[in-house]
Amino acid sequence: MKKYKILVTNDDGINAPGIRFLIDVAKEFGEIIIMAPDKGQSATGHSITFAEPLRVKTLEEKENYREYCCNGTPVDCIKLAEHIAIKGMPDLVLSGVNHGSNASINVIYSGTMAAAIEACIDEIPAIGFSYDSYSSKIDFEPARPYIRTIIRGVIEKGMPKDVCLNVNIPNTDQLKGIKVCRQAKASWQEGFDTRTDPRGSEYHWLTGHFEVTDNGLGTDLHAIENHYISVVPVQVDLTAHKAIEALKFLETQL
Amino acid sequence: MKKYKILVTNDDGINAPGIRFLIDVAKEFGEIIIMAPDKGQSATGHSITFAEPLRVKTLEEKENYREYCCNGTPVDCIKLAEHIAIKGMPDLVLSGVNHGSNASINVIYSGTMAAAIEACIDEIPAIGFSYDSYSSKIDFEPARPYIRTIIRGVIEKGMPKDVCLNVNIPNTDQLKGIKVCRQAKASWQEGFDTRTDPRGSEYHWLTGHFEVTDNGLGTDLHAIENHYISVVPVQVDLTAHKAIEALKFLETQL
Repeated sequence: MKKYKILVTNDDGINAPGIRFLIDVAKEFGEIIIMAPDKGQSATGHSITFAEPLRVKTLEEKENYREYCCNGTPVDCIKLAEHIAIKGMPDLVLSGVNHGSNASINVIYSGTMAAAIEACIDEIPAIGFSYDSYSSKIDFEPARPYIRTIIRGVIEKGMPKDVCLNVNIPNTDQLKGIKVCRQAKASWQEGFDTRTDPRGSEYHWLTGHFEVTDNGLGTDLHAIENHYISVVPVQVDLTAHKAIEALKFLETQL
Repeated sequence: MKKYKILVTNDDGINAPGIRFLIDVAKEFGEIIIMAPDKGQSATGHSITFAEPLRVKTLEEKENYREYCCNGTPVDCIKLAEHIAIKGMPDLVLSGVNHGSNASINVIYSGTMAAAIEACIDEIPAIGFSYDSYSSKIDFEPARPYIRTIIRGVIEKGMPKDVCLNVNIPNTDQLKGIKVCRQAKASWQEGFDTRTDPRGSEYHWLTGHFEVTDNGLGTDLHAIENHYISVVPVQVDLTAHKAIEALKFLETQL
């Protein structure tokens, strides 16, 4: 029987507690290959590395378990895993567990979700997991049976075409269940903390707060606020199909 | 009368011929503010910079024309322009003209389009322009009347809500017109060129070719192949709404 190959990655780096936990859950489902960034790569979006060479470091190679890290982004990790570590396609990609929420508009900035989206472009079932806390001391255990349920569901029933999953876990040990949701509407309202360096030059630190405009029933933020794990199906076709007709007035011939 | 403020950015950097051309076209529509990366930031996706300080350099400040560059990504440029250069929102964001196509799946990797998407999240009308050639000697002039038409159309008629435009210009001086399209289906099939450095360590250069699986009628690739400029409306809601029902089986309570 063909071994079920699971690729695990993240954007917080190979040593983050979140990926160590996800590896532990994933182990019961098949052969594990890990390819994760050697350092934090949060908020790198769908960035790829082509102007610098990539390097892969082997950390462990034993039967059914191989662990690698690299100097690339989460999307690079998917490509390096397919071509250097596995030399083929994995059967499933798991990304995370991210330290910090990737619900709502965060999906667009997220390196964790970029890895899942990259796998989805390659038609591999993929799930990104994130936990709604930046703490390094998260207790992931209450989420274990739910993460297991989602992984088993995807393995047994497969995924809709050209879709991957954005799973967000609320910061509570009183989890109520899983809700399949749409992306809430929100944006980061940035500010900058402007300072002057010792040489008299200005520099700016990005700051900001999260502003929610729709967290109504059916959204991921609504689920999380009510202690449910949110599952949003994410698509790689960014076309606003409904807007095509409205924009036909642009179809000029000069 | 309030001056119409146009923010221009790109991902090829402040000195790229593409942005110089776009600035020249944009000038006739209002006050210009430029905030572009000080170096190439291609394929940085929706990456943002929060672990390093950002620096802004003033290049020119005169009436109705201000030019700045910064050490950040295209998305950082939008944020810095809003908060440091303009201290408010522009009325329109133009990104590009990118050297290289951002049609089809390239929209997901593109820094040019990430800037437009970031503006869209902030509810500013935004257009990303890309030209289907990596040459540094592109003759953009044949595209000028079409770029002008698209900008004027967006200024006069506005944009559908939560949508920005991904405009791709074919590499020809025989342009036939503009088509409003959906994103073609394709993927990058990567390889790596693996080498050994002088110290005996392996390193990998990302390579790859573009593999198209749907460039049928109505797609951006079809339009471009037929010498039309493609306009794809791009949305910031990544939810695969049609997949929600099919995934309800995951809604477990344990």
